[in-house]
Amino acid sequence: MASTFPTAPDKHTLEHGETLSPRFDANGLIAAVATNADSGEVLMFAWMNAEALGLTLATGEAHYFSRSRGELWRKGATSGQVQRVVEARIDCDQDAVWLKVLPQGDGGACHTGARSCFYRVIKDGKLVERP
Amino acid sequence: MASTFPTAPDKHTLEHGETLSPRFDANGLIAAVATNADSGEVLMFAWMNAEALGLTLATGEAHYFSRSRGELWRKGATSGQVQRVVEARIDCDQDAVWLKVLPQGDGGACHTGARSCFYRVIKDGKLVERP
Repeated sequence: MASTFPTAPDKHTLEHGETLSPRFDANGLIAAVATNADSGEVLMFAWMNAEALGLTLATGEAHYFSRSRGELWRKGATSGQVQRVVEARIDCDQDAVWLKVLPQGDGGACHTGARSCFYRVIKDGKLVERP
Repeated sequence: MASTFPTAPDKHTLEHGETLSPRFDANGLIAAVATNADSGEVLMFAWMNAEALGLTLATGEAHYFSRSRGELWRKGATSGQVQRVVEARIDCDQDAVWLKVLPQGDGGACHTGARSCFYRVIKDGKLVERP
């Protein structure tokens, strides 16, 4: 399992190298954003530890780390909203991952039942629900 | 300036209320994802403190907080890559913001010169640059 990762030796290698060298934070986590591979909609924001990132890359299904539960979490394990990963990207300084996914099950991603976790627009300082 | 925000009294209000109640972390930060309002491409992942979020909403231009420099940062102040905010959303548990932006200047978002910070795909464990 690719659940340990090297550290980039310098900034140039970090930003332009071909070695995956994620920079986990003090809690061992890296940010992850999932978008719908078809529509481009941002579905959710979550965290991954090294194991979650390794499992995501190895299985092609999104795994995250729940900070509130303190445990690895295979997205959809209970909800059925498994996320098939079409493409995984990492950003310039390797502290954020972008997953393009195809949501399975009912096609949703949010525990509230919404299709995306970002179901509220900030409008004149208030939150307005929008599909 | 709306740079102080209330705390939601309970989970239901947090997830379904109309009051913006961002949950800043122990460092006073909230995650922010910016996508191109036209193409949907994820441009960057960054952080906001309350002041950055307040200024973003008040001015319609993206402001972030640089963890490495420890300071508020108006995106594009030096690069010209100002981000005009078309829409701002917040997620279910109000710990992440999604900005749909129109990048000004040369249209890019990344300090490396790339259009998006996510210019590398993770492919068979290696990073491959892709437009």
